[in-house]
Amino acid sequence: MPALDARRLLAELAQTRAPLDEARTLPASAYRSPELFALEMRELFAKMWLCVGREEQVEAPRAFITHALGPEDRERALIVRDDAGTLRAFYNVCRHRAARLIDAPRGSLRAINCPYHKWSYGLDGRLRHAPRTDASFDCAAHSLIEMPLAVFEGHIYVNLDAHAPPREQAHADLPSAASHRLGELRVARRHDYTVAANWKVVIENYGECYHCAVIHPQLHRLSDFQGGAFVEGACFNGGPMRLREGVQTLSMSGASPLGPIPGLAEADRDQVHYNHVYPNFTLALHPDYVLTHTVWPLSPEQTRVHCEWLVWPAALEGEAPADLSDILEFWDRTNRQDWDMCARVQQGLRSAGYRRGPYTAMERCIHAFDRWYVEAIGPALEALR
Amino acid sequence: MPALDARRLLAELAQTRAPLDEARTLPASAYRSPELFALEMRELFAKMWLCVGREEQVEAPRAFITHALGPEDRERALIVRDDAGTLRAFYNVCRHRAARLIDAPRGSLRAINCPYHKWSYGLDGRLRHAPRTDASFDCAAHSLIEMPLAVFEGHIYVNLDAHAPPREQAHADLPSAASHRLGELRVARRHDYTVAANWKVVIENYGECYHCAVIHPQLHRLSDFQGGAFVEGACFNGGPMRLREGVQTLSMSGASPLGPIPGLAEADRDQVHYNHVYPNFTLALHPDYVLTHTVWPLSPEQTRVHCEWLVWPAALEGEAPADLSDILEFWDRTNRQDWDMCARVQQGLRSAGYRRGPYTAMERCIHAFDRWYVEAIGPALEALR
Amino acid sequence: MPALDARRLLAELAQTRAPLDEARTLPASAYRSPELFALEMRELFAKMWLCVGREEQVEAPRAFITHALGPEDRERALIVRDDAGTLRAFYNVCRHRAARLIDAPRGSLRAINCPYHKWSYGLDGRLRHAPRTDASFDCAAHSLIEMPLAVFEGHIYVNLDAHAPPREQAHADLPSAASHRLGELRVARRHDYTVAANWKVVIENYGECYHCAVIHPQLHRLSDFQGGAFVEGACFNGGPMRLREGVQTLSMSGASPLGPIPGLAEADRDQVHYNHVYPNFTLALHPDYVLTHTVWPLSPEQTRVHCEWLVWPAALEGEAPADLSDILEFWDRTNRQDWDMCARVQQGLRSAGYRRGPYTAMERCIHAFDRWYVEAIGPALEALR
Repeated sequence: MPALDARRLLAELAQTRAPLDEARTLPASAYRSPELFALEMRELFAKMWLCVGREEQVEAPRAFITHALGPEDRERALIVRDDAGTLRAFYNVCRHRAARLIDAPRGSLRAINCPYHKWSYGLDGRLRHAPRTDASFDCAAHSLIEMPLAVFEGHIYVNLDAHAPPREQAHADLPSAASHRLGELRVARRHDYTVAANWKVVIENYGECYHCAVIHPQLHRLSDFQGGAFVEGACFNGGPMRLREGVQTLSMSGASPLGPIPGLAEADRDQVHYNHVYPNFTLALHPDYVLTHTVWPLSPEQTRVHCEWLVWPAALEGEAPADLSDILEFWDRTNRQDWDMCARVQQGLRSAGYRRGPYTAMERCIHAFDRWYVEAIGPALEALR
Repeated sequence: MPALDARRLLAELAQTRAPLDEARTLPASAYRSPELFALEMRELFAKMWLCVGREEQVEAPRAFITHALGPEDRERALIVRDDAGTLRAFYNVCRHRAARLIDAPRGSLRAINCPYHKWSYGLDGRLRHAPRTDASFDCAAHSLIEMPLAVFEGHIYVNLDAHAPPREQAHADLPSAASHRLGELRVARRHDYTVAANWKVVIENYGECYHCAVIHPQLHRLSDFQGGAFVEGACFNGGPMRLREGVQTLSMSGASPLGPIPGLAEADRDQVHYNHVYPNFTLALHPDYVLTHTVWPLSPEQTRVHCEWLVWPAALEGEAPADLSDILEFWDRTNRQDWDMCARVQQGLRSAGYRRGPYTAMERCIHAFDRWYVEAIGPALEALR
Repeated sequence: MPALDARRLLAELAQTRAPLDEARTLPASAYRSPELFALEMRELFAKMWLCVGREEQVEAPRAFITHALGPEDRERALIVRDDAGTLRAFYNVCRHRAARLIDAPRGSLRAINCPYHKWSYGLDGRLRHAPRTDASFDCAAHSLIEMPLAVFEGHIYVNLDAHAPPREQAHADLPSAASHRLGELRVARRHDYTVAANWKVVIENYGECYHCAVIHPQLHRLSDFQGGAFVEGACFNGGPMRLREGVQTLSMSGASPLGPIPGLAEADRDQVHYNHVYPNFTLALHPDYVLTHTVWPLSPEQTRVHCEWLVWPAALEGEAPADLSDILEFWDRTNRQDWDMCARVQQGLRSAGYRRGPYTAMERCIHAFDRWYVEAIGPALEALR
């Protein structure tokens, strides 16, 4: 890769912002430049609200989770509920000599103790005790660094920017999933995948079903890819797709092992609502379950995807919990088909023969995302010119 | 590695261009700098004619091969013969959303279909059909990108530069191998190797037999390394070496399982002609077979070498095809001895104790190649000063 | 990592040089920047005296050792004793075409022969014979490149800088270990470790026992971490620590399988002297053995540590050599506990939540090292501003 030419890239990005039938897809450098990747990490991922888990995972006082943020293992946020019930997110690093505090993905804590010299912090982040320091030592100056945290419909969001606007403001026009009682659902299963493609290739693949007939026969059989509407907001884009006649949900058989989410409106019983919340979170509201993807960039050409299935709690309880294998296999297969194709796209983007393509009418969501991206990254690129 | 100092490198390269007995070998940065490597890829490998296969592999209409170009897997040319018999090379990437089109190394095709959204191209590269686009869609504007292609004595050459001068002009003084009926020979075997050294170290190792007595006892026993002449042209250098008394060819036993290529002149029955065609292709014409090496840079310090043995077709046919193991083992052993030494050279080039060495009288071919290299890369370096 | 901002880094480093109770630890870029790492290699490791072995390993005429210097395998010094008994260090690279000369870690040589073209050097480094060159060839101009070498108390030191001041001058105030007869001891065992942390994190971990009570129970049981004094010189820092009542040495049991080094003063029988010789060598003088660590940077975030145990020669000889397993296990366990913690520190240094910490009174050695580091690297950083 040659060094990033910000002036040239800005001119290229301007073409992406044109109306759909004149616009051109992003240039190759947008998917490959290490400098642009660093800029994306700094300007998008370090300033926007990112989903890192479910509140159900930290329900009890003293419960915690940790979650990788940004290129894996570089940052691992610590989210913990204190004895009074307040949920907080901290940078997981000691104020003394930088040791990572907590490794475990989840658990329970009485205090946050550094494993190196046993500096001990309360669950509110305040330094309580630094061994062998004397009374003059200023504990108050060495609290853990906190990051903004918010909860919406059961999902925990954090922000690496201490001065970020509140999530309610950033997500002001985000549609509610109250129809599907998202706040009450529980995670039934999680799969993680590593994809050999830029994170935007993964997002763009999510944004169209133009490929469904070609690479997803099991999906195409059940879902009418032409039956949807397109919705766009400041923080998201998406739209519904209709299930074919007689299909209950997206599963290998087309039948639901769960039945509709209690209270679901009749109109939502034969469609799936897909939304992509910028930059990296997607929700697919099925009649009987919700599927989320969180897309974590690892490097310009590699991405980690967390995929979670959420269901009505009763389905997980009792003597005979629901058998979800029909649903899990459906999406695991669909995911793998998608990642294979994303990797082929990344290969093509490395070629000197890559030319920026047109957007077809079936790729409105991609165009919406790409336009958002150009707006979001533009000012930082302007500053580099 | 410190950043490339183009001014200093140019001054150093000037010493390489001096007459043989005053010249000094290339400086270490020529073998290690990532910036120079990128420049070589752009100025040499993306502008010169590169050998990517044999016409016999794509003889029938609809036959295709793909071949990696440049650092492996970044570019994979698609070479295909259409129904009318025309052979073409394409960048292997869809004009819609960049998916790599064909993965397989060889096969047969009726159309070039993109696996992502099934855009379909003819074997002439023209877009025939883009599903779900309407009549206004401009198929003619979305043909596959073609690259110049030429065939010479059975070898297929392509050029990544659409504006490259024709191969006949670039290779104007390339000696013919008609004496060995190269155009009619067939590939009997191919071995690929990865070498832990810069591509020029591999080329330079090919260019002298000063090391033969030391590391190739099986070769030294059969070949008189002092018995040759040196020939140099604008696009190549090389020369013949004489086989010792009674030796038929280069094989473990010195005997030929094949007999001379039909019609071979008496004078060529006891010598091997070695030629290096710039930048990365070598031919060794033995009395009974031809050996080629194609040297593909992977990174500044790693190289992929494809080695092919070509023989008279009759040797591969019939009820009792010739047993080539004596020949294959000879060169496989010799290759491995060479790659080990190339890796040691690369280790030495990393040392602060490396000093540029003299060229001995036995290293005329290396000096010729290095001088060519300095001429070829010089203008791009001048532009960086 | 953003590009190194030398001006900003210099301002940050100034805070490290403040008095202990006002100083702040090094900024994250000091442990992560590839550019700073390259600067450290050039300004510290390529200009200072580095310990590469013991004279006992090259006692006999013609004996040699090779030793990696700097990022592993890039440089491998050749240390050889000639027939007249002179010990010399050479860059391990042929003056002809750069092949590494000797791979083996140790052995015996009559001449230094290049494996590529058999150029042959004497053990004094002079080129004796270059095959197939004529009488006019200037052998004298192609001697191996020598590097300064010195021996002190049995340890061999080399310097990559031909113009370096003599070791005696560089180490003018280095305390002698004659009390422990270091010059007469023999290496009993060596362990090598790879640590996922910057080399300075490893050095800093060595410089305090504030963590001993927390992560080294087996050490804390035997050694009074508060019982020491702090000593600092131009080329080192360190100090003794007292063994607890009844403890003979640092071993799993606290007993010594060796007994005190012959002639050891009574005062040294219940303490361990720790010294760190800048940049990368540490000595721990126990009553009955000496432990050394040599800390070799591999990359900004990875380090190789060589650990050696030296004992009085008689302990290794005779029919029943001493059983050192109690000692070896003690330090192997302690080492691994340390490397785990170093890796956690490196993780924390990658976090946007890292803040430079205070030095406690127990971290004087770290502060001394960090101040030395700031002084040593400062001028080269000034030149970059």
